[in-house]
Amino acid sequence: MAQRKIVIVGGVAGGATAAARARRTDEHAEIVLFEKGPYISFANCGLPYYVGKEIGDRSALLLQTPESFRARFEVDVRVLHEVVAIDRAAKRVTVRNLETGEVYHESYTALVLAPGSVPIRPPLPGIGLPNVFTVRTVPDAVAIRELVERESPARAVVVGAGFIGLEMVENLAGLGLAVTLVEKADQVLPPLDPEMAAFVQSHLEQMGVEVITGDGIAAFTGNDRATAARLESGREVEGDLFILGLGVRPDTRLAREAGLAIGPTGGIQVNERMQTNDPAIYAAGDAVETIHLVTGRPALIPLAGPANKQGRVAGANAAGDSLTFPGAIGTAIVRVGSLVAAVTGLSEKAARREGLKVYTSYTLSGDHADYYPGMQELMTKLVVESDTGRLLGAQVIGANGVDKRTDVYATAILGRMTVDQLANLDLAYAPPFGAAKDAAVVAGMVAQNIRRAALRVITPEELLGRMEAGEELQVVDVRNPYEYDMGAVPGAVNIPVDELRSRLGELDPSRETVVYDRTGAMAYVAARILAQRGYSVSSLAGGYALFPAAEAVRAQRTL
Amino acid sequence: MAQRKIVIVGGVAGGATAAARARRTDEHAEIVLFEKGPYISFANCGLPYYVGKEIGDRSALLLQTPESFRARFEVDVRVLHEVVAIDRAAKRVTVRNLETGEVYHESYTALVLAPGSVPIRPPLPGIGLPNVFTVRTVPDAVAIRELVERESPARAVVVGAGFIGLEMVENLAGLGLAVTLVEKADQVLPPLDPEMAAFVQSHLEQMGVEVITGDGIAAFTGNDRATAARLESGREVEGDLFILGLGVRPDTRLAREAGLAIGPTGGIQVNERMQTNDPAIYAAGDAVETIHLVTGRPALIPLAGPANKQGRVAGANAAGDSLTFPGAIGTAIVRVGSLVAAVTGLSEKAARREGLKVYTSYTLSGDHADYYPGMQELMTKLVVESDTGRLLGAQVIGANGVDKRTDVYATAILGRMTVDQLANLDLAYAPPFGAAKDAAVVAGMVAQNIRRAALRVITPEELLGRMEAGEELQVVDVRNPYEYDMGAVPGAVNIPVDELRSRLGELDPSRETVVYDRTGAMAYVAARILAQRGYSVSSLAGGYALFPAAEAVRAQRTL
Repeated sequence: MAQRKIVIVGGVAGGATAAARARRTDEHAEIVLFEKGPYISFANCGLPYYVGKEIGDRSALLLQTPESFRARFEVDVRVLHEVVAIDRAAKRVTVRNLETGEVYHESYTALVLAPGSVPIRPPLPGIGLPNVFTVRTVPDAVAIRELVERESPARAVVVGAGFIGLEMVENLAGLGLAVTLVEKADQVLPPLDPEMAAFVQSHLEQMGVEVITGDGIAAFTGNDRATAARLESGREVEGDLFILGLGVRPDTRLAREAGLAIGPTGGIQVNERMQTNDPAIYAAGDAVETIHLVTGRPALIPLAGPANKQGRVAGANAAGDSLTFPGAIGTAIVRVGSLVAAVTGLSEKAARREGLKVYTSYTLSGDHADYYPGMQELMTKLVVESDTGRLLGAQVIGANGVDKRTDVYATAILGRMTVDQLANLDLAYAPPFGAAKDAAVVAGMVAQNIRRAALRVITPEELLGRMEAGEELQVVDVRNPYEYDMGAVPGAVNIPVDELRSRLGELDPSRETVVYDRTGAMAYVAARILAQRGYSVSSLAGGYALFPAAEAVRAQRTL
Repeated sequence: MAQRKIVIVGGVAGGATAAARARRTDEHAEIVLFEKGPYISFANCGLPYYVGKEIGDRSALLLQTPESFRARFEVDVRVLHEVVAIDRAAKRVTVRNLETGEVYHESYTALVLAPGSVPIRPPLPGIGLPNVFTVRTVPDAVAIRELVERESPARAVVVGAGFIGLEMVENLAGLGLAVTLVEKADQVLPPLDPEMAAFVQSHLEQMGVEVITGDGIAAFTGNDRATAARLESGREVEGDLFILGLGVRPDTRLAREAGLAIGPTGGIQVNERMQTNDPAIYAAGDAVETIHLVTGRPALIPLAGPANKQGRVAGANAAGDSLTFPGAIGTAIVRVGSLVAAVTGLSEKAARREGLKVYTSYTLSGDHADYYPGMQELMTKLVVESDTGRLLGAQVIGANGVDKRTDVYATAILGRMTVDQLANLDLAYAPPFGAAKDAAVVAGMVAQNIRRAALRVITPEELLGRMEAGEELQVVDVRNPYEYDMGAVPGAVNIPVDELRSRLGELDPSRETVVYDRTGAMAYVAARILAQRGYSVSSLAGGYALFPAAEAVRAQRTL
């Protein structure tokens, strides 16, 4: 067989992985990798931490150099070379050397497209001013850090409260800047449900970050540099440094111009083998459309995990192997100060948008046994398919152990497991690490109880709505009086759970009743006591730990 | 329907959980709980940490008191009451009040047995001496801590290197005692495979713990107190304090005497509903035999996680509900100083004992992205069913993140997932928490590569055996020369991976070849380079990170 020649476009996560795997698959192929930027295989997820100096040295971000990659994988790496066109009939690409301007052709047997994504930069007045940054490349991060070191700016404005935006907020705040965060949606972290995101917003505000939601960016004002962001509401937010975290879109120009199929979500369409509609052309990374493994539908999931896996598959197949990448579920995590927030699978709003019939459960649990020092709480929300009990999504907020439970849920989702299986997980327990009933097991048990109708729940959103509509629900706070006195659901009466049986005379069994405590555990006991005495009773989902967040969401909506 | 009367024997994990769930299931039942000890619902997993003063106050161990339990669950709790007989025909138990000596009967509609397990105390000379302890109850831990505080002992001897034994070693060493650990098996942590356990032994030795394996306890010597342990080899180990960590056996006396079925493993036999062969009698916790969900066979898994879940199911069903407990997989974890070791599912030796056809894979990965500060390594061993690729077991050794990966593997095992699915897990990645290719994903990919024959591996055990048998394998160390100089496989030649293609002339393509580096990643590249040039080549499983541990195991065996 003639020597295979594999050309790879893009040298970061998807492209570099594809090149390495292609080489391991075919030692005798000629492999050429084009990267239009100056670096290959850099850690773009590390850029915010380089800005924040948690990562001290720039070289730490460069996982491979063209030289190291050439030596190990015998790949002909050409940085500052842009592939500008694909001639599918002739099986060759047109390349421009960005340093010399030279344009030439390179033929291929198989082509792998890994052009990545481009940060969204709407054509707003002033967006080109030099102190308005995106955070996508090593030069981006270097420029931001240099500006910080050179000018010691006092105020930063971060536009967009997604994952990258929050990482930049954390790192700039860590450097001592006063940070304002602007988000057009009416919540931070739009991939999460609003009441879960409200914990993050509250924590940001405790950190001293000014958070503006429900307001988009209209312009950057200033002459040779931006001095303020003007929002759609007309409000002006002053700053010395502006970060755009508005998300990314797949870089599909090359693919479109070559007539490759683009999927309904706007990414390059590929099959499970990461093959485009041209069998000689594969694609991987942020530029491709992938399958969301919960919905089974096309989705854009521009994250490093899927990109690496896709690159491995594309590289293997371009070199004659046959691997498959079935899809992803959008697991993501962010640390903001001492708070960690994560999501996997579908949020409730995403599930409802998909028309799925779901229910939710909230649990508040320790990250490890409460009798062992240092326990911190985790708030967990599960999204469960009503008909099957299958776990479709989870969101976790807390400090320690958020990543662990998120990964457990992600594994369970990929394994198409039900909440019954979750309730029976056999997880690692020693006092420093977990609990006899781990947070994930408790979440499964509560979701199982709801499903079996051993527990009826009412979401805080529904309770607030019905209270506002004038319904006279009987709300019973079963915590201790000192907790009740520090704040309670409006109109709630206080009967501690341990006194409930002896104080039933204070309640009206004919009224629809809602019980709550802080974590849900005592409310569950109270609900069972009342339900078996004929009450129509629900437990407030998430208890008083969630209620203020839900109140904040409602207040936000009615602004 | 007449009032249901539920009697529960045992008030710790299984029994207390059963009582609480029974009450939630039937608010109107009469529920009586007998506990022969002075406490209910105590944290027996916390006892070693109470000894070590990580848990300062004894009250932290008492999760419920008889009074709190009675108030919340309206359960008639009788501590220091021992149930001494069951009259199944009359549906009543005989109870002895251990304080007064009074004996009386209590009838039941449903009975839940949760007597737990008893620590193994072989009838050895001197085992009854007052400074020889087991660690099973609050009074045990209090007595040990009091002895430490009163006498400031210098030397402790821990007999048994299982999970409890190691927790006691850690805590006693933390108090400043010189600790000797004695284990009859030829490795510490017998639930792990020996080469993985060797990392733990090595770490213990670095902590200053003297570790004696392959030697059992024969006697404790001394007059009114033990001053030495005499081992089966005749060796004497002096000490001021002796801890027995020889495991537990199910406390089935009551069940046996009542003629209840006992399973082949010696635990009380129950169905999925935790019902014994007497439909009015349920059982839960350490005393029961459960199903190992990997083998599908009966097993004893005396751990808190299963006990709590079984108690929940037994309590629900005793009160008229119908929940099931399918079984467990024996997930367990222990921290020893800065090292953490965990196991889930089947070890390789357990799988082979079961007659299963399995292969293994070893990977060394960071707990998070290596470019982010504080990365620590994890050594992972997977046990995979050869015919199906299904994950049957995992062992993880490291510092941070051992618990997380173990729980991911435990979830995957319960979901009957394959290594292909593991390789495609979509886990939470931000630099502080993981990597674009998480350790669990890498483990899945390597196991997938082995399964697809993209990678042939040789275990260090096999390599050592073949080298000792005089086979002249060509062993190539592909690390950098300075690493090679610090220690290498005997007889290995050093050709760094990046020079391999240009130095092929130094190798003999006709000889069977083994390549290795430290982590396996470069060896994989080297193996692919050579395999595609016609070499019969294997990569050394676990690389040089595992090899010294395997050497230690071999040396131990041939002692």
